[in-house]
Amino acid sequence: MISKALIDEFEKIAGSENIFTDKTDRVAYSYDAAVLDAVMPALVVRPVHNEALGQIVRLCNDNRLPLTVRGSGTNLSGGTVPSAEGIVVVTNALQKILEINTADMLVVVQPGVVTAKLAAAVEAKGLFYPPDPGSQAVSTIGGNVAENAGGLRGLKYGVTRDYVMGIEFFDVNGELVKTGSRTVKCATGYNLTGLMVGSEGTLGVFSEITLKLIPKPVHYKAMMAVFDKMDDASQAVAAIIAAHIVPATLEIMDNFTIRAVEDFSKAGLPTDAAALLLIETDGHPAQTEEDAAKVESICRQNRATSIHVAQDAAERDKVWLARRNALAALAKLKPTLVLEDATVPRSRIPEMVREIQAIGSQYDLPIGIFGHAGDGNLHPTILTDKRNKKEWERVEAAIEAIFDKALAMGGTLSGEHGTGIAKARFLEKETTPATIVYSKRVKKALDPHNILNPGKIIG
Amino acid sequence: MISKALIDEFEKIAGSENIFTDKTDRVAYSYDAAVLDAVMPALVVRPVHNEALGQIVRLCNDNRLPLTVRGSGTNLSGGTVPSAEGIVVVTNALQKILEINTADMLVVVQPGVVTAKLAAAVEAKGLFYPPDPGSQAVSTIGGNVAENAGGLRGLKYGVTRDYVMGIEFFDVNGELVKTGSRTVKCATGYNLTGLMVGSEGTLGVFSEITLKLIPKPVHYKAMMAVFDKMDDASQAVAAIIAAHIVPATLEIMDNFTIRAVEDFSKAGLPTDAAALLLIETDGHPAQTEEDAAKVESICRQNRATSIHVAQDAAERDKVWLARRNALAALAKLKPTLVLEDATVPRSRIPEMVREIQAIGSQYDLPIGIFGHAGDGNLHPTILTDKRNKKEWERVEAAIEAIFDKALAMGGTLSGEHGTGIAKARFLEKETTPATIVYSKRVKKALDPHNILNPGKIIG
Repeated sequence: MISKALIDEFEKIAGSENIFTDKTDRVAYSYDAAVLDAVMPALVVRPVHNEALGQIVRLCNDNRLPLTVRGSGTNLSGGTVPSAEGIVVVTNALQKILEINTADMLVVVQPGVVTAKLAAAVEAKGLFYPPDPGSQAVSTIGGNVAENAGGLRGLKYGVTRDYVMGIEFFDVNGELVKTGSRTVKCATGYNLTGLMVGSEGTLGVFSEITLKLIPKPVHYKAMMAVFDKMDDASQAVAAIIAAHIVPATLEIMDNFTIRAVEDFSKAGLPTDAAALLLIETDGHPAQTEEDAAKVESICRQNRATSIHVAQDAAERDKVWLARRNALAALAKLKPTLVLEDATVPRSRIPEMVREIQAIGSQYDLPIGIFGHAGDGNLHPTILTDKRNKKEWERVEAAIEAIFDKALAMGGTLSGEHGTGIAKARFLEKETTPATIVYSKRVKKALDPHNILNPGKIIG
Repeated sequence: MISKALIDEFEKIAGSENIFTDKTDRVAYSYDAAVLDAVMPALVVRPVHNEALGQIVRLCNDNRLPLTVRGSGTNLSGGTVPSAEGIVVVTNALQKILEINTADMLVVVQPGVVTAKLAAAVEAKGLFYPPDPGSQAVSTIGGNVAENAGGLRGLKYGVTRDYVMGIEFFDVNGELVKTGSRTVKCATGYNLTGLMVGSEGTLGVFSEITLKLIPKPVHYKAMMAVFDKMDDASQAVAAIIAAHIVPATLEIMDNFTIRAVEDFSKAGLPTDAAALLLIETDGHPAQTEEDAAKVESICRQNRATSIHVAQDAAERDKVWLARRNALAALAKLKPTLVLEDATVPRSRIPEMVREIQAIGSQYDLPIGIFGHAGDGNLHPTILTDKRNKKEWERVEAAIEAIFDKALAMGGTLSGEHGTGIAKARFLEKETTPATIVYSKRVKKALDPHNILNPGKIIG
């Protein structure tokens, strides 16, 4: 139990209105979007300025209190599940966009800024922040950077990592570390920016993030290709990639997902289709149209039964919104939703789709498939009820089988959801023992008392 | 002095034909392209396979021998200047391109592969490796990754860091660490790939590197804009950037550099011009031509006196080759060439050009200016003779003044040359004390006896 004296110290730093000790409050911060057991924190603190943030980190370290930073808690690997009797630091009061610099095409933000708000703010100035995780309507930039969040535009525009120019963060002693630069090129010092991206709050606590922006694409074309077989759809994906066409998005959905999404969103998806590809090309109008024509032709060669081009922005937005709501749509159907993101080199998508289907049969589980086919990042979905122990055992075995297949194809455990608690114990399947030892040395050197989000990534 | 017994052990690992102890051999590896004092190593070793490489690292650590890995030694910050009585490991026998994967658009190489050879090999398969450091004809990929090398295409295509998907390297104990993935997205484990890029051989020794490739641009257009005033040229750069046009390259040259380059390369540059911009747009033909037209119009608005468009590939290649030879051309003129790369946010280029000119006047030194104006990475050039102590003192003061001005504009000490020995002591000007402490903790944890390229980056 945390002492009254310590709570008083947190209060002195953050103000009594920003300290939450009631059980009902603490329950709300005891879990995130991953399927993991909830863990009750001792205290929730909401700093309203950076000075308080640094002091909180220091106070936690001085008192050996485990500290978990949390944006909106949308992450899917348990990265924001706190430690028992630990402190949760909520960043949602640190939500200022500090600067949008149109000349240098960068933006400086506090960690609690919501991703979609940032994207809208820079679009209003003719600029573009491409990373678009499915949770962007509520997720925060701090969380995106901590998890190296991906999204639908990964194949053309990359992921969060590719847009982080610099980070200011508090080290475990509450001292301010500044990494990176406002320049396009920076070869000064260690690339601590790179190390911090995806470090899940285990190496420091972000206070300010500088992100690269690019000019907004002037033109786009969205289409939906309908297939009678999932295999045809995934072969079309492989063929688009082999032709070295790089659409902005290239999403796949199987019939299971289509029906769930349509039921939830009423976007007009064909519920009798075995599979859909949702594709958008963008850029210069000529490039966009040529790429779209090539994509259409490749889809037809791979037996697409119909191709529908969005006629206006409203129609396009409706379909993308439906796709973005896939997780919510699926989550409604059963008590427990497992959304995996083992990822393969993009040419292996057809093989991976078949393997996931085979695993579903083997373990007698319906596994839905949707996701970012164009960058090899599928989201196999299992709907279950964790309280059904027998079925849950099969679910866990199926997940591990999916990992094994992805790794056998040269893939990775996580494309964009992070390692967190959920995948920490599988790390040794993917890499060498020395890699884990190396990682642990870094962690130990930077957080000797293991108070920064303990148990994440390396267990 | 290294003992005979130890030399025998190195011989056993690498073979006697790959061990160099003669003074003449050692002298050749006692310096790199930076203006720094030479330091004689005890021994030079050239491993011919990865197993030997790992064993060499272990032997060095066991015997507390400082180890400096060297590709072609082209780096400009002293990153490959060895330690006194240390070991130099030369990677030029590790020069296999292990795999070019056109479907997944990636390449796997050993560290000693020459950059230009890699670029040509992937272009032959219709793919493109964009990073093009000035030294690419001789520099190695291992060196490029260790220094996070930049190049002419930084503003559109980024730098080496943006293309490294994964690294296999030996830690200080000679154990194999594997980072990253062959997938487009990877959020598994710590981003050790990011940490290793730019770490200058201080945290591990690369054995294998996986690089991302992109489709080769189908069209390009190169032009040369001539100006009567350097200020007009730099204002044109700022205006192109403000218009959010992103050429593939956007280089500036002052009269001093033009004359040196033309004298060396006979490329047909106008030696009476005060300044040149060398600009190339690329991509889809329509985009390329539109961007080129806009660039041309902006140059004219900024008082370009003439604009010459390259009429064919041969003419284009001749000008770019001349530009790439700028360093060699300048180096011929005086005993000592100082080539700086303090970098500013790209909108500040006109201001930075004026500041460099003012510093030249203040310290009574002719400072040539050329470089990657489009990404804020200028290369102020001072030609001097280090043996002239009085002048050298002024040179050092001028360099520090350039650093101060760049930092005052929100810039960085190094855009692409690295920190090495040359800039280590200036690090505290750019960042916080806690940042340097944090970096030292990482280094200490991963190399407790400080044998991996000691003295680089953090001193």
